[in-house]
Amino acid sequence: MATDSDERPIGVFDSGVGGLTVFREISRLLPGQPLIYLGDSARVPYGTKSAATIIRYSLEAAQHLAERDVKMMVVACNTATAAALPTLQARLSIPVVGVIEPGARAAVATTSGKIGVIATEGTVKSQAYSRAIHALRPDVEVIESAAPLFVPLAEEGWANTHVAREVAEIYLSPLIDAGIDTLVLGCTHYPILRGTIEKVVGDRVRIVDSAETTAALVKSLIGKSPTGTPEHHFLVTDAEDRFRRIAGAFLEQEIGKLELISF
Amino acid sequence: MATDSDERPIGVFDSGVGGLTVFREISRLLPGQPLIYLGDSARVPYGTKSAATIIRYSLEAAQHLAERDVKMMVVACNTATAAALPTLQARLSIPVVGVIEPGARAAVATTSGKIGVIATEGTVKSQAYSRAIHALRPDVEVIESAAPLFVPLAEEGWANTHVAREVAEIYLSPLIDAGIDTLVLGCTHYPILRGTIEKVVGDRVRIVDSAETTAALVKSLIGKSPTGTPEHHFLVTDAEDRFRRIAGAFLEQEIGKLELISF
Repeated sequence: MATDSDERPIGVFDSGVGGLTVFREISRLLPGQPLIYLGDSARVPYGTKSAATIIRYSLEAAQHLAERDVKMMVVACNTATAAALPTLQARLSIPVVGVIEPGARAAVATTSGKIGVIATEGTVKSQAYSRAIHALRPDVEVIESAAPLFVPLAEEGWANTHVAREVAEIYLSPLIDAGIDTLVLGCTHYPILRGTIEKVVGDRVRIVDSAETTAALVKSLIGKSPTGTPEHHFLVTDAEDRFRRIAGAFLEQEIGKLELISF
Repeated sequence: MATDSDERPIGVFDSGVGGLTVFREISRLLPGQPLIYLGDSARVPYGTKSAATIIRYSLEAAQHLAERDVKMMVVACNTATAAALPTLQARLSIPVVGVIEPGARAAVATTSGKIGVIATEGTVKSQAYSRAIHALRPDVEVIESAAPLFVPLAEEGWANTHVAREVAEIYLSPLIDAGIDTLVLGCTHYPILRGTIEKVVGDRVRIVDSAETTAALVKSLIGKSPTGTPEHHFLVTDAEDRFRRIAGAFLEQEIGKLELISF
């Protein structure tokens, strides 16, 4: 039995620009699927905020996306996933996908026992990756470590500089010395620095990019996807010019329709 | 005629922790003066936000400080000063002091013609320093440049590392090559990196630290200040633990009374 594809957009939510790496991967795997990206640029970053605050902000974003009739919501922010995913799943009547579970699954599938996770302070503090990994395989050792300077390095366009390399060495050396065989990029900004991170960890450590793993999960969940050339839609809560500039660099193309919203 | 000193506190407002450098200088110059520090840590950073948003946030903070009966409000954030100072001065019935005018005055007093200003993207975009300096001396050349990585470097406790030195060289070389003789630290985080910045610019460039110049202005304005050992009071809008940790490092001492507020 052939069914029609559901033409409604998928909502992709992030605190700012980092989730664009997830947007990019979804759009690569599902080229015909319209997407609405919501970046809460007025209140970025979430990484240093408390869980209660992040839950409140995420619910406001979810409400806004629901009003635009999305068929699924992707929480393309590790910090928001760590703090707010269960609440969002309980409150929304559409599927809500986070970025942590897919990354944890991919890491568990390849590790032989020791996984490193780099993320924001908020995500590390939540220990969400340790919990997600241990729920799948309790015997795996997980070392979580904050790498906050990676975010401004990515946003500044410094991902492939000597400074980024040096910062990566400082953040990653303890993990390499501890003998990790798998490294989860537990912040959606970090795929922008993937080349630099790979040079530092070498080829004995497998990189798990949660943007890729989340996009694969989304593809598996939505069934038949629309065809054609979709017009994507970008929503921000502040500073459109800055978003346009950084988004263009992250997506390696000019972004189209951009709208300033408030809630 | 001897008058009694006004025992009411001075309110010091910043988007997060950067304004603590101003707090520190005021407390050094006026050791008996009680201070209330308000860090809007739920909405930090202001540097990437629009002027309209910054004005709205600053008015909320001002309202909160006014309810605590402060005798003066110091806007210890360059971005908030650039965007919101005239509005705050028009709406409040107490004196409101910003950090830009004192820095501009100090820079003009020492330059022989070419001033560099480093600040956040928001402050640079506002051109508030160029305007303030040109209002005092129209013939001076002003070169404004954004140095956004300095903020996370200061907050990470990396102010005196090799990475900070390298970042400082990248940001400051164009200014040094352009022949500046004076460098304004146009973000209240930057005094934390002053030692590194001084090493990079050398002794031919005079550093203007707006925390110092603002504290001197505050002292000149308040007249007779209270004596005794004041209990300072810290208010934040989110993430008290993170504030306590970074504030301790910035002030080089444990902070006392810390309260979570919302508005």
